[in-house]
Amino acid sequence: MSRLRWLTSGESHGPRLTALVEGIPAGLRLLPEDVNVDLARRQRGYGRGGRMKIETDCVSFVGGVRDGETLGSPLAMQIENRDYVSWTDRMAPEPLSERPERLVRPRPGHADLAGGLKYDRRDLRDVLERASARETAARTAVGAVCRRLLAEVGIDVFAHVVRIADVEVGALPESLSDLRVVTRASDLACGDPGAEARMREAIHRASHQGDTLGGVFEVVATGVMPGLGSHVQWDRKLDGRIAQAIMSIQAIKGVEIGLGFEAAKVSGSHVHDAIHYNAHAKRFTRPTNRAGGLEGGITNGEPLVVRGAMKPIATLRKALMSVHIDSKQPFEAAFERSDICAVAAASVVGEAMMAIVLADALLEKFGGDSVRELKCNVNCYMGRISGY
Amino acid sequence: MSRLRWLTSGESHGPRLTALVEGIPAGLRLLPEDVNVDLARRQRGYGRGGRMKIETDCVSFVGGVRDGETLGSPLAMQIENRDYVSWTDRMAPEPLSERPERLVRPRPGHADLAGGLKYDRRDLRDVLERASARETAARTAVGAVCRRLLAEVGIDVFAHVVRIADVEVGALPESLSDLRVVTRASDLACGDPGAEARMREAIHRASHQGDTLGGVFEVVATGVMPGLGSHVQWDRKLDGRIAQAIMSIQAIKGVEIGLGFEAAKVSGSHVHDAIHYNAHAKRFTRPTNRAGGLEGGITNGEPLVVRGAMKPIATLRKALMSVHIDSKQPFEAAFERSDICAVAAASVVGEAMMAIVLADALLEKFGGDSVRELKCNVNCYMGRISGY
Amino acid sequence: MSRLRWLTSGESHGPRLTALVEGIPAGLRLLPEDVNVDLARRQRGYGRGGRMKIETDCVSFVGGVRDGETLGSPLAMQIENRDYVSWTDRMAPEPLSERPERLVRPRPGHADLAGGLKYDRRDLRDVLERASARETAARTAVGAVCRRLLAEVGIDVFAHVVRIADVEVGALPESLSDLRVVTRASDLACGDPGAEARMREAIHRASHQGDTLGGVFEVVATGVMPGLGSHVQWDRKLDGRIAQAIMSIQAIKGVEIGLGFEAAKVSGSHVHDAIHYNAHAKRFTRPTNRAGGLEGGITNGEPLVVRGAMKPIATLRKALMSVHIDSKQPFEAAFERSDICAVAAASVVGEAMMAIVLADALLEKFGGDSVRELKCNVNCYMGRISGY
Amino acid sequence: MSRLRWLTSGESHGPRLTALVEGIPAGLRLLPEDVNVDLARRQRGYGRGGRMKIETDCVSFVGGVRDGETLGSPLAMQIENRDYVSWTDRMAPEPLSERPERLVRPRPGHADLAGGLKYDRRDLRDVLERASARETAARTAVGAVCRRLLAEVGIDVFAHVVRIADVEVGALPESLSDLRVVTRASDLACGDPGAEARMREAIHRASHQGDTLGGVFEVVATGVMPGLGSHVQWDRKLDGRIAQAIMSIQAIKGVEIGLGFEAAKVSGSHVHDAIHYNAHAKRFTRPTNRAGGLEGGITNGEPLVVRGAMKPIATLRKALMSVHIDSKQPFEAAFERSDICAVAAASVVGEAMMAIVLADALLEKFGGDSVRELKCNVNCYMGRISGY
Repeated sequence: MSRLRWLTSGESHGPRLTALVEGIPAGLRLLPEDVNVDLARRQRGYGRGGRMKIETDCVSFVGGVRDGETLGSPLAMQIENRDYVSWTDRMAPEPLSERPERLVRPRPGHADLAGGLKYDRRDLRDVLERASARETAARTAVGAVCRRLLAEVGIDVFAHVVRIADVEVGALPESLSDLRVVTRASDLACGDPGAEARMREAIHRASHQGDTLGGVFEVVATGVMPGLGSHVQWDRKLDGRIAQAIMSIQAIKGVEIGLGFEAAKVSGSHVHDAIHYNAHAKRFTRPTNRAGGLEGGITNGEPLVVRGAMKPIATLRKALMSVHIDSKQPFEAAFERSDICAVAAASVVGEAMMAIVLADALLEKFGGDSVRELKCNVNCYMGRISGY
Repeated sequence: MSRLRWLTSGESHGPRLTALVEGIPAGLRLLPEDVNVDLARRQRGYGRGGRMKIETDCVSFVGGVRDGETLGSPLAMQIENRDYVSWTDRMAPEPLSERPERLVRPRPGHADLAGGLKYDRRDLRDVLERASARETAARTAVGAVCRRLLAEVGIDVFAHVVRIADVEVGALPESLSDLRVVTRASDLACGDPGAEARMREAIHRASHQGDTLGGVFEVVATGVMPGLGSHVQWDRKLDGRIAQAIMSIQAIKGVEIGLGFEAAKVSGSHVHDAIHYNAHAKRFTRPTNRAGGLEGGITNGEPLVVRGAMKPIATLRKALMSVHIDSKQPFEAAFERSDICAVAAASVVGEAMMAIVLADALLEKFGGDSVRELKCNVNCYMGRISGY
Repeated sequence: MSRLRWLTSGESHGPRLTALVEGIPAGLRLLPEDVNVDLARRQRGYGRGGRMKIETDCVSFVGGVRDGETLGSPLAMQIENRDYVSWTDRMAPEPLSERPERLVRPRPGHADLAGGLKYDRRDLRDVLERASARETAARTAVGAVCRRLLAEVGIDVFAHVVRIADVEVGALPESLSDLRVVTRASDLACGDPGAEARMREAIHRASHQGDTLGGVFEVVATGVMPGLGSHVQWDRKLDGRIAQAIMSIQAIKGVEIGLGFEAAKVSGSHVHDAIHYNAHAKRFTRPTNRAGGLEGGITNGEPLVVRGAMKPIATLRKALMSVHIDSKQPFEAAFERSDICAVAAASVVGEAMMAIVLADALLEKFGGDSVRELKCNVNCYMGRISGY
Repeated sequence: MSRLRWLTSGESHGPRLTALVEGIPAGLRLLPEDVNVDLARRQRGYGRGGRMKIETDCVSFVGGVRDGETLGSPLAMQIENRDYVSWTDRMAPEPLSERPERLVRPRPGHADLAGGLKYDRRDLRDVLERASARETAARTAVGAVCRRLLAEVGIDVFAHVVRIADVEVGALPESLSDLRVVTRASDLACGDPGAEARMREAIHRASHQGDTLGGVFEVVATGVMPGLGSHVQWDRKLDGRIAQAIMSIQAIKGVEIGLGFEAAKVSGSHVHDAIHYNAHAKRFTRPTNRAGGLEGGITNGEPLVVRGAMKPIATLRKALMSVHIDSKQPFEAAFERSDICAVAAASVVGEAMMAIVLADALLEKFGGDSVRELKCNVNCYMGRISGY
């Protein structure tokens, strides 16, 4: 059975989001603020619209945590949807006194129509409420818990934005720790102040044109020991598991690791990383990290480097043709929405997904029902491989 | 419980590869040649080396098939490693009379070192034998079975190479069926004869320089009904599941769907696909397919279009530094191997992985313990959505 | 991937219980009272103690249900722990202002000690809060949802008590529908009024002696089509899956199907069920049902009949020796608790677990993302087998 | 993802059985004879028929094992069906030159009819070939591998027969190690020589009457540390997982743990086990083991004791009515088969299933990719709990 299991539930304008996480070892210090800090980061970002400002997401633990510590039992977390109060006439779970107006105009680029066909729903709200990126708040909460766990064994995860539309970052801080600091201070999660200014400008321009922008974020994990994931079966390969995790985020259309698509363009002599040995630290190192920390589906001790490509938000102010599901008549799909660009927010979700995949791989390798046991097992292993 | 489960086993120079597949409905016509044709395609390709020519892979069914038809019970398939006979002194499962020379020089770009640390092996052959792309022959066999199943409901999967190093395809046949035909006739699986010639040249050149080349392949699935996959949970999203499947292939470092990374660069008004209604066919259509057939993690009825970026084969003739695992002394990692470029082969594995993911999603949605039952359920649904 | 997934969370005196259920088709009518009726039945029963009377469990849907209907998205259900208000000083998830008195005296027959060792907890409350049978309220809620789904395809599940300590039922109503009616009216869920009186007496007596009683319940599922479960792999066998589900209920120590342990005692000629054919109904029938509805791990169209043996509640008033976990000094483990016998309650949980297993097997065989689709698929199949 | 995954394939008269096992740590010494000894034990037993004598099952490792040691990669094991050579005209996977006579008379007590309906097969051989207990040879092989792994951490599993029809064992050797020795020497796996003689007699008698006999076996696991399994979720409870494993064995109709059904009959003061502390060994002990080693779904350090009830083999010489699937005409289902009683064989399969469940739970708790790592992690834990 899987060591880590988690499920989330909740519609965008329903009562609340709920996340259940099972498999987190007992004895992990865990406070609401550990989660809230990431929930807040997910809501920030230049180019975000109105709703983000209304709600400040806060988590409540309602299972698995006592006295600020995990018990080993499944965690339940809740995040209220603050505007549910004004949606009860349309979203309440109980039979509604009056049937609300149906949503019958599927938006291009959304799950609306495919979901309506699949689930046999003729009010497309029944689909879009769950398909909405609101769901990523719950993922972020799960990710924050995993991040706390990873911290216990020295693993850190952070993300930064490397592209907004046609603006790419140039020079970044040399060290990853500097990059992390700069990135956290930027409300576009961007490590290059010059590029950030141009990104801001591009967003401003798009806003005026009623358009939206996508981009690319990069997730980095540091402190990862060699040996997570495995080459022995296709679905144990960590690169595949990370790719799924990132691609599953709303609006993501591409994932790459290390050199990624660039690796397809250059010859073999420019792609692989030499292996060195640091006798002092008793560890093998690589002077370059083109592989992005993964060889053969296994972490090799270098930082994990993964990028996700986000399409522009599908809700657009410029019209696109669509079809009324009852009349089958075409109409112009034009929706007002104030979010212009959500790449910075998506990068926080990317961090969360990376943290979840790593926590899963960590527990799979090391087992452990308490943090003490996990650490003891990790130490065993680190000792062994330093004598390899 | 999962409807489709499969596992493979086998080392590159061990006795044989074995694949078990459970969940294929009963009553599917299935002959060895259905599988062998794909096994042969995996071995073809300009730029492949010696071993590919020695072995012509053939499958044997040893479970789950009788009289040319599946029984509903788990399939077992075997593919012999023809050169095992000359490796018994090093690879036999029984205790060897003489301990074979250990492999102690980890190759950059391979699982060798990370796997050796993880599994506590000091003969790196214990790792590389399983990490080798030889394993993809077993995946190809599983994919061929899934392809037979998909054919019963009108789904087809094919792949073509769109880039080798810096050579990209230009004009491709307009219709996907034409593209399929052209592609199948090309030994680089390339749909643009002009580009193919330049790819061939690039491979030839790399061969002379002792170098290797990567590239990008595109997998296309046609005839896919709307409604496979789901938006309701992160790991039910079909885009994520496809991304995992493709990224898990040896040497793949990037995956994209539809516009992919390009989508991150353009504005929202150029990314989404309008929705039309074809009253005659009673189905919703899209004049464009920038989404690559997936919206909200659900198939939308358009062809699936997915690309995988393959790095150049890690086995290289140009030297790269590495470290002897016993002495910790550096050495020049230079390996002779005759494979220069395996992108066409990888594209066949890409087809297989796509076929497996789609078969899984199909059975998840439609159930069915016999082909007749599956088809009946699909028909039910197709009828219902044509009246949506 | 599994069609039906569910997880529960929540400590006995924590804020609330939470259950997440994913895979329930869209379009299922579902009201809180559908769940509440089973929650109430779980709390009833002669011989139940004080707490049961304080709390009347009520479910809230907070995800996956809108306007009295499921959406296909994951359901979230919550059941408040009404006495949490008086436990916040000991059970709050946030750091407590004052560390509560630790529970250091493990109770025999409970998870206390084994759980304390496993999860490295020195306050045994951290274990027992989750190990408590309070958790079965969440299971009951999940079961009630599955029961609603099963009802759509004509499957019903009910349970009755066949033994309390040394009192066994004698003559039961001949028809299962009569048995169901009688059973539902009895507050010991007993179908034999004479036996029920003696059971009541036994419980009364035990209560006076400060002792507790166990018993045996039988779960019956009617209307089950042939073909759920499978013989093809050990873990697809429905008998095994049912056995796990029943044995996993707190205090259950035995499970049997059909004749069960009795089958081990008699000769082969008295164990198997003849096969008849009802030409009118176009179905195969059995004049007897010794197999309990399962042959080869597959339902055969006869009612499922499964029994679970419950040990007496481990909380006892009579002393048993145990050991203080700090001092390692022995002490007399004597706990006041008012529950004398919970077999009737357990039978409701047994129903729930059976309903969950059947819903899972149903969705595995028939797929279906909406109730309409599920029913269409079931009808396809029923038509086909009536022409077998 | 699950640490241990395994699948088997193969029909009773097909070419061979295949088992794939993934998750066994690297560095486990593993020889064919480790498996063959259990395969032979499965075939023994007074009352077994002709086929058992023809075949002596032997395993071949064809993946995951090299030089007598596991590699961490998936194991593939094969067991030939020696009589396949005389069945190729009916069982070959390739299209048969002549369609073999269909099996159209479903046997009561078998999967024949339910499987035929489910999988839409009109030759019942397509079902019974996989439903046959021949499949348990593959499980036994998997169990033997797990047994080797368990041995590395001091866990042993053995089984003995406690009942054949109405003959029950009486006095058994006091110590479990003596019981193991006596049992292994008995060809009915019986620990009470007097009872064994009467069992033998009963089998002899049944043989003359053309009847078959069932019985009860008990599986015991010694050396199990406290803390395997968990109380935190229904499907992590080890009692449930063991119940599934045992109930999934062909012809098993009941499972009980510790006192089992007896626990339902007695009062609470006679059911639970006191807790003592052995200061010398620094471990908690129980003077009795009515719980069968499991409290709250977690191992408590005492031996696991589980019983399975087997119905008499369904193949019988005495006639039972059945129905021809084409004509729907009744006929007398009388089958010659020489197996009279297979309880001793089933007990070996019971051992295998217990070993598999324990290995899974062990890896879930302790992780570990090599035997050295697993042992190191176990030692960490054992040290910690001895200081609890």
